[in-house]
Amino acid sequence: MPDELKELLSVNERFYDALQNGDMDLMEEVWLKDEDSRCVHPGWPILIGWESIKESWKDIFDAGGPVKIELSEINAEVSDEVGWITCLEHITHKVGDELTTGIAQTTNIYERRHSKWHLVLHHASPVPMRMKDVAEEKLQ
Amino acid sequence: MPDELKELLSVNERFYDALQNGDMDLMEEVWLKDEDSRCVHPGWPILIGWESIKESWKDIFDAGGPVKIELSEINAEVSDEVGWITCLEHITHKVGDELTTGIAQTTNIYERRHSKWHLVLHHASPVPMRMKDVAEEKLQ
Repeated sequence: MPDELKELLSVNERFYDALQNGDMDLMEEVWLKDEDSRCVHPGWPILIGWESIKESWKDIFDAGGPVKIELSEINAEVSDEVGWITCLEHITHKVGDELTTGIAQTTNIYERRHSKWHLVLHHASPVPMRMKDVAEEKLQ
Repeated sequence: MPDELKELLSVNERFYDALQNGDMDLMEEVWLKDEDSRCVHPGWPILIGWESIKESWKDIFDAGGPVKIELSEINAEVSDEVGWITCLEHITHKVGDELTTGIAQTTNIYERRHSKWHLVLHHASPVPMRMKDVAEEKLQ
C-alpha cells in the first residue's frame, strides 16, 4: 500500500479515536480549521466553517457522545493532495441503561497541507437498519 | 471565478440535467466509468463500481425518475485534479396525481482526467423537512 494511503487511513483512524474518546484536542488536530470545512452529522443540516463544526462536536461530547464506534467497508482513494474515504460507522450510544447501535454511511474528504492530511468534509447519513444487520449487531 | 471552478460547476449541472431528464447517455458521459466510482442514493446502501451505479440509474429512470430537481446552497472547491461540491437537492416526484418534494444533502466528488471533470462519488442523504421548508416548498 502506498505511504500516502497509509497516512490517510491513519488520520481517519485518529478522527474516529477523537470521536469515540470525546477528545476535542485531537478533533482540532485532525480537522482543517478553515471557513470552508463542512460537516453533516446524521440527519443534521450541513455545518460550514470550523467554528460551527467545533461547537457541534462540543455539543455532542457534552451530551455524552458515542460509547463505541466501529468501522466497516472502508474504501480510500488518493489523487494528488486530496484523499477521500467512504465507510460504514457502527455507532453505539447509551440510552438510559440500554446500548443501541445505529449505522451511518460516511464520506470523509481530506486535504494534504504541508505533508499532513486534514479533514475538510465529513458527511454521515443514517442507514436504515436491515434485519440482517440487527441480527449481526445483537451477536456482538 | 477561476476557469476550473466554472468547468466543475458546469459538469455538476450536466449531472443534474441527466438526472432530471432521465438521460442515460449524458449520465454515462458525466461519471467516471471506473470500478472505484461510488454512489449513495438517499437511504440506499452504497453502490461501488460504474456497472452497479449504471443499473441503479436505469432502475430510477424506469420507475419514472424525478419530475424536477432544483439545487440550493451550492459550494464548490477545487484542489489540483479533484473538485467537490456540496448542495441541497430539492427533488420533486409524481406520486399518483400528486407532486411531492423531498430534500437531500449531497456531496459530489469529481476527478479531472485529460482536462475533463468526471463524477467519482455521489452521496445524497435525506434531510428531515422542517416546517419552514414545507412552507417554502408550497409557495413555489
